Amino acid sequence: MKNNLIITISREFGSGGREIGEKLAMELGIPYYDKTIIDKTAKETGFCAEFIEKEEQRVTSSLLFNLATNTYTFGNMMSHYGQSLSDQVFQAESKVIKDLASQGSCVIVGRCADYILKNQFPCFNVFICAEFEKRCERAVEKYGINKDDVTDIVKKTDKARIRHNQFYGSQDWGDARNYDVTINSGTVGVDNAVSMLKAVIENYR
Amino acid sequence: MKNNLIITISREFGSGGREIGEKLAMELGIPYYDKTIIDKTAKETGFCAEFIEKEEQRVTSSLLFNLATNTYTFGNMMSHYGQSLSDQVFQAESKVIKDLASQGSCVIVGRCADYILKNQFPCFNVFICAEFEKRCERAVEKYGINKDDVTDIVKKTDKARIRHNQFYGSQDWGDARNYDVTINSGTVGVDNAVSMLKAVIENYR
Repeated sequence: MKNNLIITISREFGSGGREIGEKLAMELGIPYYDKTIIDKTAKETGFCAEFIEKEEQRVTSSLLFNLATNTYTFGNMMSHYGQSLSDQVFQAESKVIKDLASQGSCVIVGRCADYILKNQFPCFNVFICAEFEKRCERAVEKYGINKDDVTDIVKKTDKARIRHNQFYGSQDWGDARNYDVTINSGTVGVDNAVSMLKAVIENYR
Repeated sequence: MKNNLIITISREFGSGGREIGEKLAMELGIPYYDKTIIDKTAKETGFCAEFIEKEEQRVTSSLLFNLATNTYTFGNMMSHYGQSLSDQVFQAESKVIKDLASQGSCVIVGRCADYILKNQFPCFNVFICAEFEKRCERAVEKYGINKDDVTDIVKKTDKARIRHNQFYGSQDWGDARNYDVTINSGTVGVDNAVSMLKAVIENYR
């Protein structure tokens, strides 16, 4: 790589985006941030790592949260205490992601990093997708999800991820025009995707 | 390339998709079909090539066409004589595209080829896009469009292409999930895109 570059990888559940990110970072000899972001966010907020992982996929707007918990007041709407838990997690994660990006080239998977770093850091944005059936197969094989439950779990995770990204990130999650490169890992293959991204990024800028 | 493969390239106007297609075909040593499709469709339909080129971007459904030309009758709605001109061009082009695909590996740019050949031929579907400003720059530099007119022309062509693709091709034109690979040629670069596609396709299947 010629210059500092933050490679963000957005991915559909079960598409192997995380594996592609890890392998790509190794090939490029740069850090890969995934669990680190959760651990640092935990330190930042005081929430435990498991709670953050759950909250990452949720969307609870301040308004809805405050109405539901009867804490809504006009003056307090945007204050720290008026924020929903998912808003607090998102803001803390955004700070962690910007801190990591400022340290130099790296690969960041998920967490709306493409949107958070937009126009502030030199980014190369990737989207990894695959057909529903192939993602289900992968979820059973690689993540150990039960065959009987996999269809429901993938569908629910898809919905949650789209909703979360629409709320906190890009409006058109998965639209080619939001990324530098998108790859169908189901047809291209994980290792072929890694080689392709490595070659493109080495020739980039 | 290990096996027969039809590489379809859908592209935004001014993104360099045609140049990428031509160079890729040359690198892979396979035919590139663009003008050939128009010439063969001209022979098939009896329309002249210039007319076909114009009609390719249009959408006139049978119903609207027939109402407008007062030729609409219930019994005749789907007959050859009841078809709009754009429907006739699309059907003739579809036949030409399938004939060419059946002859072996090739690159086909545009014309909803990804949709026309779906589930019938082994395809590798690519989408090329770029930021609006970069596409305008390219349209001035490469296609000789006047600087004062370029914004309007690119906007109008975008609208026409989206409408045409929604009508005759994939509903979500530009959605990553409809392609094997998508590339932003404005950031990745035309030659880098060609190398990347060549490497991926050589390792494909």
